[in-house]
Amino acid sequence: MSKILGVLGGMGPLASAHFMLRLTLLTPADRDQDHIPSVLWSDPRVPDRTAARLAGGEDPLPMLLRGIAGLKAAGCGAIAIPCNTAHGWHAAMQAATDRPILHIVDATAAELIRLGVAAGPIGVMGTAATLAMRLYQQGLEGRGWSCLMPDATEMAQQVTPAIALVKANRVAEAYAPLAEVAQRLVMRGARAVVLGCTEIPLGMAAGPALPFPVADSIDALARAAIGWARSPSC
Amino acid sequence: MSKILGVLGGMGPLASAHFMLRLTLLTPADRDQDHIPSVLWSDPRVPDRTAARLAGGEDPLPMLLRGIAGLKAAGCGAIAIPCNTAHGWHAAMQAATDRPILHIVDATAAELIRLGVAAGPIGVMGTAATLAMRLYQQGLEGRGWSCLMPDATEMAQQVTPAIALVKANRVAEAYAPLAEVAQRLVMRGARAVVLGCTEIPLGMAAGPALPFPVADSIDALARAAIGWARSPSC
Repeated sequence: MSKILGVLGGMGPLASAHFMLRLTLLTPADRDQDHIPSVLWSDPRVPDRTAARLAGGEDPLPMLLRGIAGLKAAGCGAIAIPCNTAHGWHAAMQAATDRPILHIVDATAAELIRLGVAAGPIGVMGTAATLAMRLYQQGLEGRGWSCLMPDATEMAQQVTPAIALVKANRVAEAYAPLAEVAQRLVMRGARAVVLGCTEIPLGMAAGPALPFPVADSIDALARAAIGWARSPSC
Repeated sequence: MSKILGVLGGMGPLASAHFMLRLTLLTPADRDQDHIPSVLWSDPRVPDRTAARLAGGEDPLPMLLRGIAGLKAAGCGAIAIPCNTAHGWHAAMQAATDRPILHIVDATAAELIRLGVAAGPIGVMGTAATLAMRLYQQGLEGRGWSCLMPDATEMAQQVTPAIALVKANRVAEAYAPLAEVAQRLVMRGARAVVLGCTEIPLGMAAGPALPFPVADSIDALARAAIGWARSPSC
């Protein structure tokens, strides 16, 4: 029996659709039946994760747990969540289910290794909440990397508005501000840049590729999911 | 309460991921919470629909019904199936569930109207099984259109191999044979071409846009699903 991958998505919906596309394209396959059975639970009604963490907004955890229960009921053996900010609730979600929940920061660390960037300063772009929760700082520091973050002005004027543009389907407009911040991080010494919000790779794909290593958290999570699906253990 | 869309996918998985992407991009939205809650049941293990219909292969209906039951259990109010050939089992699936199953041929007919092609000969590209089952011929004839199909040589040498290339993730190679057949259909008198297999729009997107109206069955089904989700009735 094939293992079924559960995808807790909708955060945002374009990022989770893009995750499904990348999961498919990165899977070695000659025909439909070689691909990974998966169920995508795309519920964009999950309360905003950044607002919950930074501005006292509604707690997303109950809706996240509802999705996880739905994926378990559908027979999924592991869960991938293509939203970095939601990983601020990873421990709480994992405590509530016996299904392993892949961790997007671990997957992105593996992607940095795959890109040949084993040490040094790494630029990290993400939502204000992902940075404030120190998801990447905790995940990368102590494994040989240090983290460089955009400053408050870059976050407020470029990164946060660009993420909102992608969520509003205005993907092409998101490229310029995102690319500029990535380039500034490299000028400050970053050897690679982590796209640590799943909207950011969508904006970055709307223009020319950047001339330095970029660790895309969507592709990283897709590779981790394929590794789980193809591993012999249950 | 928002209505939840069920998507019975995996046939193929790239087409269903692309459907989720187009569903998102075609939905008017300013933020995550404006998008349509949906569950994608992507089971690429469904037996090959063309082999079942034309070569005595395993019947896909039991696996299709299993997916529909899973989507109903997840709370879905209607079902979209981004696979034209699977619509050969539409009546059998609809008989087995009280949830409405949108019909991709009806959606594509609406797309022809939207494109301003209200009458005349229409080129229809699809799997050999979709053409043999006359899904489009039955759906379009009698509504003011007639159908022009690729000939047996074009099917065997271009259309069928191109569909297999997309299912094997070799999307770029699929463009040339598909574009050539579409152009030949127009030279024979077609006023528009229906991309009546959900792999075909993926191949067509890998090269220059064609200089005549093209009715993409993925976009058509996405528009029908958005119409269902936004309609006031339950």
